[in-house]
Amino acid sequence: MGMLGGGPGSFIGPVHRMAANLDGLIELVCGCFSSDPAKSAQAGEELCLPKERVYTSYQEMIEKEILLPADERMDFLSIVTPNHLHYAPAAMALEAGFHVALDKPITYSLEEVQSLAEIMARTGKRLLLTHTYSGYPLVKEARYRVQRGDLGKIRRVYVEYPQGWLSTDCAADNKQASWRVDPSRSGKAGCMGDIGTHAFHLAKYITGLEVVELCAELNSFVLNRQLDDDGTVMIRYKDGARCLLSASQVCAGVENGLYIRIYGEKGGLEWRQDTPNTMIFRPVDGVAEIIRTATSSIASPAAQYNSRIPGGHPEGYIEAFANLYRNFALTLMAEAELREPSEFTLDFPSIEDGIEGMQFIDAVVASSAQNVAWVKWQK
Amino acid sequence: MGMLGGGPGSFIGPVHRMAANLDGLIELVCGCFSSDPAKSAQAGEELCLPKERVYTSYQEMIEKEILLPADERMDFLSIVTPNHLHYAPAAMALEAGFHVALDKPITYSLEEVQSLAEIMARTGKRLLLTHTYSGYPLVKEARYRVQRGDLGKIRRVYVEYPQGWLSTDCAADNKQASWRVDPSRSGKAGCMGDIGTHAFHLAKYITGLEVVELCAELNSFVLNRQLDDDGTVMIRYKDGARCLLSASQVCAGVENGLYIRIYGEKGGLEWRQDTPNTMIFRPVDGVAEIIRTATSSIASPAAQYNSRIPGGHPEGYIEAFANLYRNFALTLMAEAELREPSEFTLDFPSIEDGIEGMQFIDAVVASSAQNVAWVKWQK
Amino acid sequence: MGMLGGGPGSFIGPVHRMAANLDGLIELVCGCFSSDPAKSAQAGEELCLPKERVYTSYQEMIEKEILLPADERMDFLSIVTPNHLHYAPAAMALEAGFHVALDKPITYSLEEVQSLAEIMARTGKRLLLTHTYSGYPLVKEARYRVQRGDLGKIRRVYVEYPQGWLSTDCAADNKQASWRVDPSRSGKAGCMGDIGTHAFHLAKYITGLEVVELCAELNSFVLNRQLDDDGTVMIRYKDGARCLLSASQVCAGVENGLYIRIYGEKGGLEWRQDTPNTMIFRPVDGVAEIIRTATSSIASPAAQYNSRIPGGHPEGYIEAFANLYRNFALTLMAEAELREPSEFTLDFPSIEDGIEGMQFIDAVVASSAQNVAWVKWQK
Amino acid sequence: MGMLGGGPGSFIGPVHRMAANLDGLIELVCGCFSSDPAKSAQAGEELCLPKERVYTSYQEMIEKEILLPADERMDFLSIVTPNHLHYAPAAMALEAGFHVALDKPITYSLEEVQSLAEIMARTGKRLLLTHTYSGYPLVKEARYRVQRGDLGKIRRVYVEYPQGWLSTDCAADNKQASWRVDPSRSGKAGCMGDIGTHAFHLAKYITGLEVVELCAELNSFVLNRQLDDDGTVMIRYKDGARCLLSASQVCAGVENGLYIRIYGEKGGLEWRQDTPNTMIFRPVDGVAEIIRTATSSIASPAAQYNSRIPGGHPEGYIEAFANLYRNFALTLMAEAELREPSEFTLDFPSIEDGIEGMQFIDAVVASSAQNVAWVKWQK
Repeated sequence: MGMLGGGPGSFIGPVHRMAANLDGLIELVCGCFSSDPAKSAQAGEELCLPKERVYTSYQEMIEKEILLPADERMDFLSIVTPNHLHYAPAAMALEAGFHVALDKPITYSLEEVQSLAEIMARTGKRLLLTHTYSGYPLVKEARYRVQRGDLGKIRRVYVEYPQGWLSTDCAADNKQASWRVDPSRSGKAGCMGDIGTHAFHLAKYITGLEVVELCAELNSFVLNRQLDDDGTVMIRYKDGARCLLSASQVCAGVENGLYIRIYGEKGGLEWRQDTPNTMIFRPVDGVAEIIRTATSSIASPAAQYNSRIPGGHPEGYIEAFANLYRNFALTLMAEAELREPSEFTLDFPSIEDGIEGMQFIDAVVASSAQNVAWVKWQK
Repeated sequence: MGMLGGGPGSFIGPVHRMAANLDGLIELVCGCFSSDPAKSAQAGEELCLPKERVYTSYQEMIEKEILLPADERMDFLSIVTPNHLHYAPAAMALEAGFHVALDKPITYSLEEVQSLAEIMARTGKRLLLTHTYSGYPLVKEARYRVQRGDLGKIRRVYVEYPQGWLSTDCAADNKQASWRVDPSRSGKAGCMGDIGTHAFHLAKYITGLEVVELCAELNSFVLNRQLDDDGTVMIRYKDGARCLLSASQVCAGVENGLYIRIYGEKGGLEWRQDTPNTMIFRPVDGVAEIIRTATSSIASPAAQYNSRIPGGHPEGYIEAFANLYRNFALTLMAEAELREPSEFTLDFPSIEDGIEGMQFIDAVVASSAQNVAWVKWQK
Repeated sequence: MGMLGGGPGSFIGPVHRMAANLDGLIELVCGCFSSDPAKSAQAGEELCLPKERVYTSYQEMIEKEILLPADERMDFLSIVTPNHLHYAPAAMALEAGFHVALDKPITYSLEEVQSLAEIMARTGKRLLLTHTYSGYPLVKEARYRVQRGDLGKIRRVYVEYPQGWLSTDCAADNKQASWRVDPSRSGKAGCMGDIGTHAFHLAKYITGLEVVELCAELNSFVLNRQLDDDGTVMIRYKDGARCLLSASQVCAGVENGLYIRIYGEKGGLEWRQDTPNTMIFRPVDGVAEIIRTATSSIASPAAQYNSRIPGGHPEGYIEAFANLYRNFALTLMAEAELREPSEFTLDFPSIEDGIEGMQFIDAVVASSAQNVAWVKWQK
Repeated sequence: MGMLGGGPGSFIGPVHRMAANLDGLIELVCGCFSSDPAKSAQAGEELCLPKERVYTSYQEMIEKEILLPADERMDFLSIVTPNHLHYAPAAMALEAGFHVALDKPITYSLEEVQSLAEIMARTGKRLLLTHTYSGYPLVKEARYRVQRGDLGKIRRVYVEYPQGWLSTDCAADNKQASWRVDPSRSGKAGCMGDIGTHAFHLAKYITGLEVVELCAELNSFVLNRQLDDDGTVMIRYKDGARCLLSASQVCAGVENGLYIRIYGEKGGLEWRQDTPNTMIFRPVDGVAEIIRTATSSIASPAAQYNSRIPGGHPEGYIEAFANLYRNFALTLMAEAELREPSEFTLDFPSIEDGIEGMQFIDAVVASSAQNVAWVKWQK
């Protein structure tokens, strides 16, 4: 693995590295960690990389890596830069024959992701999109139970992602805040791009429901903030199910309250990211059950496959993240050895999820701009 | 106190009686518990009422009670019938000089509540509207803290009231369900009238924010159900605050999940009805605090006034309900003795809350009928 | 009902009155609320009692009440004084033909309770001992499930009752604290008498297990405190089950953390008093279940009998307390009408529980005095 | 790092490897994963080790590794075998000049750990003892707050570690169970050796209190089980503080309920392993606070040092485990470079903790054998 971005002060860069490290399957072999060569070099040294494989630009990295022997060069490029710096390196890497890992939202604009999809189709390269939360074992259990019919026909989905870290005008002090609230780097949406897309993806991943139309109100509560820091979305799915999605970054004092609830004719499921090893299953009439990671309460083979330790030993965010990397890596390894990847290793978000995420951003921004008008979902 | 309704099989009738009993201030002296005289008589006997004060109609009850000596006759009439049977007895009782206690929603239609308001203004009689949840000590604490400015300017309110008891077509088996889903008895709205109004009232009671406009989607998930069993509402308050309100009766397996969260520039508050003795206060930066009923964590005199037992001894729904009755009764007693009621005893929902509730029902039904159009709030 | 004690400043007096009021079955008709006649009179007035039935001593109350017509005089005397003032009025009342309600621990000493038992056997009068926690619906559910065999043979019981209200030397400022820590009024034990007996009773009520022997360490952490404010007890039951009981009043900041867990060969149960409407059932292998008051998760008829409102409307401490009073009153009413009381109404703690409680106090004090020696349980 | 044990079917071997991997500081370079050469080879292959560094015995591993160039050979040996197979390889590795990582309990007997201590003193090599729970950020926060005096003088400690996985006679089916219940492999104690030592260490790590004496009852509930599967311990610390420690492996259905509560004159702290990112601080009078990993509620530099991701992204068991490995590795790296290790990197359990753990086992077994007699703590 090579890495673009993730130098000093980065939040998500180290997370990607830890996630890649965890299972001993992926080795960081090169990187360009900052647009500042000194910072990039410093990061490379701290990461024990040889100097010649710490690069000063992604172009240099891709050009030089491709010249290395196949068993030496990076297998894929992990891009952890701000949104506006996703597309160009991803496109170049894919064209050069590298697989790519990208953080969400996948690109700056819908056009960019459509272009990536075209390149992927042409080159046959793989892409990992790190919608972390789909890596949690109990999220996989939820998906399995929905598919198995434990909930019956789904009627109502609530998914919310409240945070409080942008409650004040902190862009000056906080590196991540500075670009998250800047439309030239983040894209059309702030809160909805950053965490609304996570909520949207989570609902899709678990339920599989297809959007028909949606309406949304985006708000910007902090003075002079140019992008939304809060929003709510009503979603109409095919066959009548409804989703209420909310996301906010001005819920003062809240950390990371991603929460999803799904109710169908036969039962309901409830899962919170901040206590990720517990899920409640509620039959329509009967006794509510406590589903716990890596215990006999688990029905889903995928949930078992993505757990590492016995029940009662909490698995967290890094483990969920590592599941994405591991499954991606095992898929690449299988294909490198001309084996068929298993359904388990193919279980990671990719370009389709990226396209849907960018469509979501476009749709909620458009709806809000028309005072919460209904916007049809584009296929 | 006299009671209309609340005979065999009633859910809310016994709750009103227990709430009225709790503090030893109110005595049930007469009633008409059912339109079926035998059932009414049976209920009266079980309640140890003298036969002559168990009536066969509200008209009889009001006419006969008014003839009794002032210190013998009921002081107020508590009406616990279905919605379509609120207005006529309430109007007659008020006109006859009795005070009235009513369950929510206050009437079948907005016109009815406006008529009640006119009668009250003319007769000077009092009305208690049992929006129970405003009786909880921690709800009063929340209101106090908002008023004191602990949260700063409010930005975002989330209030939700999920239930699951109408997930199936249970109207045939469940007395309460049968009229709740029947527009001829419930009124224009089902879920939104029954519990949406509670959520709306709770947000108003705590925040005091004034609605500018709202849009809503109401759904009816159970086949052939004529009224909504689910809905979501976006509310715009004056000065830019936003509220997302949701209510549902098809969240399979959920009991009574009323939950409110309020976030302002300086902090947030979170309170759930099913663990009503705990509230979280989150400062925008700093340590979250656990506020607990009847402990030194309480700042509000009203919260103390409405607690009965030391911290750690859970107070519940009946105590909250009893707070409404007690405050109402103490107000009536004060006024009967020509004393000024205190601000504490005047702290119970009344006709203004009833009007707002009916406006809410009208507005959400109208918005939903126009595919989630914005509806201006009428003053 | 007449009341002895419970005047101004009392914690538990008002609780008894609210509990007695709740169901409309019991009326307070007389009282002696304080040894200070002025305070007693004031309390009587606030409680709307006629002056002639507010007495200045328990002797006067008993002597005068007995002279009233049977349908006017109190049916039973509720004694809510400090421990050293339980026995004499209880004995006199029983001898005079009144039933008695007493708070725990039942008396100042084991000898006193044995004397009460003798009087009861002779007079045939009934006694209610207000071990409140046994009144909670889910405690009855737990008892039922143990009896039904859901847990199999019981192996391990943990019961704990931590509080923090005596963490400082607050006896001077707090009326209740002042006598709780005073051996001349409390008896041999402080914490163990006050709340250790509750924990002990709860374990017995649910499991039915018989004690063989126990050892205990009692501690007194606050300087110059004469009685224990903390202690732990190991209990050996017949057939090999073990109980670990702890109680403390110096767990700084803790309110009222009564918690019981019971594990057998086939499953376990866990219940906390501060969230009393939820209990967890854990099968030895399988999915943990959430048992909730007044829902379809309830198996026990007694749990249903002792619930008042549908699931999701929290019932609390007063309701649990009221269950004891209601069941006691219904038993007295049945017997007054020469009917057999039902098993449900007979479900209240009484003299046997009182004797066991005093034996428990004697045993833990004796064990601790001998540096945690084993003490055989006396039958 | 080399590894001894941890082959197919091992629970803890993979945990050690993931923990070592996480931060990219430690590389697995060799191993002897099983006493069965075929299994060892298979594990080595799965772990991508070169064949020549997969050994068939620890003797071979140590002898051959020491012959490799210093920058190639393993720096330390991680031993993850059953207890009876700790001492010999650890002693040989230390004597050969390798550092050692060991799982708890450190050895089969107290004599063995004393011998290891002697070897370490002589060789100057380092030892990591993986008392995992001391690696959690909030455990470090608790330790810091105790040291800072937030709790005042400590009075009462409750520490418990209930599990249910040995509720049945599962030794035949479960590799780990088979040796845990076998005195020839586990040592004198079963439950108390496996998890009692964890609870004991956690209390010591946080409070720093010194034991004066203890008494204990160990139980064996499953028929024919030779070692304890349950036990309770009363501990007397210097200066009067008391600890109640309980551990059980027959709490049917319980996963891994390690829970510690500490109360002093000024406040209390409560932390549970299964929700490890939340800790409650209770001042003796005032508002309880919610302390959360990696947020502004953290006071301890060590807690910050041992957190990897911002608040709200759950860190779990592997991260706690990785903190031990990382700190150990950074200490070794510093010393290899002749730098002084920082107090942060020196923060990992080692031989002293191992000695105390074995003393604990000896003491509880001795006390229980004498029917819960007090046993003085040996220095």
